[in-house]
Amino acid sequence: MSHDDEPPAARRRFLAQGAAAAAALLAGGQARSDEAAPPGIPEWMKTPGADVGSQTYGLPSRFEAGVIRNVPKGLPQYISASSRTPLQDLDGILTPNGLFYERHHGGIPDIDPARHRLMIHGLVDRPLVLTMDDLRRFPSESHIYFLECSGNPGFEAIKGRTASDLVGLVSCAEWTGVRLATVLAEAGLRPEARWVVAEGADSAAMTRSIPIAKCLDDALLVYSQNGERLRPQQGYPLRVLLPGFEGNMSVKWLRRLNVTAEPAYSREETAKYTDLMPDGTARQFTFVMEAKSIVTRPSGTQRIAPGFHEITGLAWSGRGRIRDVQVSTDAGRTWQDAALQAPVLSRALTRFRLPWTWDGTPTTIASRAIDETGYVQPSFSDLTAVRGLKSFYHNNAVVPWRIAADGEVVNGYA
Amino acid sequence: MSHDDEPPAARRRFLAQGAAAAAALLAGGQARSDEAAPPGIPEWMKTPGADVGSQTYGLPSRFEAGVIRNVPKGLPQYISASSRTPLQDLDGILTPNGLFYERHHGGIPDIDPARHRLMIHGLVDRPLVLTMDDLRRFPSESHIYFLECSGNPGFEAIKGRTASDLVGLVSCAEWTGVRLATVLAEAGLRPEARWVVAEGADSAAMTRSIPIAKCLDDALLVYSQNGERLRPQQGYPLRVLLPGFEGNMSVKWLRRLNVTAEPAYSREETAKYTDLMPDGTARQFTFVMEAKSIVTRPSGTQRIAPGFHEITGLAWSGRGRIRDVQVSTDAGRTWQDAALQAPVLSRALTRFRLPWTWDGTPTTIASRAIDETGYVQPSFSDLTAVRGLKSFYHNNAVVPWRIAADGEVVNGYA
Repeated sequence: MSHDDEPPAARRRFLAQGAAAAAALLAGGQARSDEAAPPGIPEWMKTPGADVGSQTYGLPSRFEAGVIRNVPKGLPQYISASSRTPLQDLDGILTPNGLFYERHHGGIPDIDPARHRLMIHGLVDRPLVLTMDDLRRFPSESHIYFLECSGNPGFEAIKGRTASDLVGLVSCAEWTGVRLATVLAEAGLRPEARWVVAEGADSAAMTRSIPIAKCLDDALLVYSQNGERLRPQQGYPLRVLLPGFEGNMSVKWLRRLNVTAEPAYSREETAKYTDLMPDGTARQFTFVMEAKSIVTRPSGTQRIAPGFHEITGLAWSGRGRIRDVQVSTDAGRTWQDAALQAPVLSRALTRFRLPWTWDGTPTTIASRAIDETGYVQPSFSDLTAVRGLKSFYHNNAVVPWRIAADGEVVNGYA
Repeated sequence: MSHDDEPPAARRRFLAQGAAAAAALLAGGQARSDEAAPPGIPEWMKTPGADVGSQTYGLPSRFEAGVIRNVPKGLPQYISASSRTPLQDLDGILTPNGLFYERHHGGIPDIDPARHRLMIHGLVDRPLVLTMDDLRRFPSESHIYFLECSGNPGFEAIKGRTASDLVGLVSCAEWTGVRLATVLAEAGLRPEARWVVAEGADSAAMTRSIPIAKCLDDALLVYSQNGERLRPQQGYPLRVLLPGFEGNMSVKWLRRLNVTAEPAYSREETAKYTDLMPDGTARQFTFVMEAKSIVTRPSGTQRIAPGFHEITGLAWSGRGRIRDVQVSTDAGRTWQDAALQAPVLSRALTRFRLPWTWDGTPTTIASRAIDETGYVQPSFSDLTAVRGLKSFYHNNAVVPWRIAADGEVVNGYA
């Protein structure tokens, strides 16, 4: 179901039919006769504004100075840390590059693209060292994909206040680059090739092993994000992009692809980024980010008045398209299908919306995503029944928001 | 035809079949055995990089400082002027907000959204004055649409050097807002309503008349662009967005909608933004931007070497989807279908690509767009045969790029 399929007339009827909704819209604002009190001429119309080109690279309004990446306070160091996208302040499905979430393991390197090289070696017929100019001469593709850290939010972090605190380690962009398969074909894979070990040019030499099937499927080597070149925080000048896989496998500042028969068993796939199960064993190589969703509006720290509201949020799945998002406004007793904004793209964020009139009674709202494989986003109790509480990564549980009598919205887990 | 339909194997065969292409790829770069000369450890791996959150709102790399809006030099004033998107430096279909083209008629106002009001009056049952909070409570939609100035490039401006000089007054973004039809229904249109006169809160009080049919169709009142709130240059906190219509009708800093029986005949629809025809009459109210395209790479001021290249560019139509883009590499004698990047969206920029091996012979390359109505982008001579040379606006002619023996790319009109 998509807004595109719904004529404006249907929504006009929706507003007109619901007397409470229409009244609430007006009561919430300052609607009144313009004869009675037309707005005056504001001071910004009385003198010329700023010049064209006063910002050759533009920035947000000073009135949006609070819409920034959510950086945790008081950490012992910030070279291995993360900052989160302010999901509750954003609309649509795209994340502006300036607000894309960060997770670095050795800080953000300052790389000169003219001096950057990508080396491809190991089980290949023709080892290659490629410049950025070389890479830009290969056939290119563009796709809109989400990227999510597998520690989003972790199992103990569900005590956060905002949507950003809870699941702000997910963002979405249009990526442009060359298929990894194309570049590997140029090098010539040997028959025994099973893994490609990617290494970043940061001070952590971030290293992850990628199964060859993914490398030959939809993996990209990307140099652009949302139209312009990658930002330094996102791997400038080159990163791997593995659609639907946990974020840190999409190695940033990519300098080396070592084609191997075995994985590297690097720190980030042994000591970290594994899932400790109830029986004490560690689940390794959990690549795909399962279906997930969150209501971003209304959400934690916001306050609502009784009357009409549009409940809206984001859903995504590492396995493909979102088929449905169900929203509950009665603490999970009943669920309604939300409208999905077209086009619904595979492994992109998907915007959902549901009209709702709040009667002022305290309640809990939540969303759950269902992807094209039929997988249903679990409740936290269903998830922990399988996974236990020793895990840190891969928590895709439903996020409930509790709404108090005064309209304050708080984390339903807190 | 879309890359999504084409398995990677096809492209592998493409590279392998074309010995010249593969050889050129290698010759153009520094491909060599890694045993012979593996890249050393760059200095940016030897010390920790910048902290997470060192930019709470991120910016491009310092090595991309030249990718900025293209501001004309030496104008007598800059409050009524334009800056252009650097199309030749961008990939994909989206324009980052910082590089979105500008056209202002009284400078850029600095508007406090808490004090901004939208007044809806005239031929309505219930005049309204709405705050931004009111507008954000209406049901919302998000769509990816291009926006183009009708003076892009003008008829005399075809002597520019870069793709940005020529047609840089076009950009594309994901817009979020409420359908204008929904808000007009709230006010209640009277039967005699035929036009809505939109007024901006800039010092020019930019005023344009919008036919009621467009207002009740896909017109939006938008507050967000590419996920975040509109930038001041794009109408913060509120603008009209009329998909496919000439840019200045999408009035920025929107403060007033006056519902009328007749258009306003404002300066911007009489003295300006009309098309002077060969017989001396002026064609007025030319709303829809017709189909157009441009090759962005290789394009003016770039220099190419013989060998494999991907020809790529952008196509768009105010009437709907792009059906086909044809590319000529022999000065218009023959045309080949380019691949279109999926999803091809209605009234969005569409990225096209064609693999090409340049043999070093001087030639001219160009693209022409065909939209879903069957309309074919005209040559400049076909266009001027109808329109003459007295026009300024609505030039959608084919742009040829001439490639010299040394690989320099120059404007084919120059």
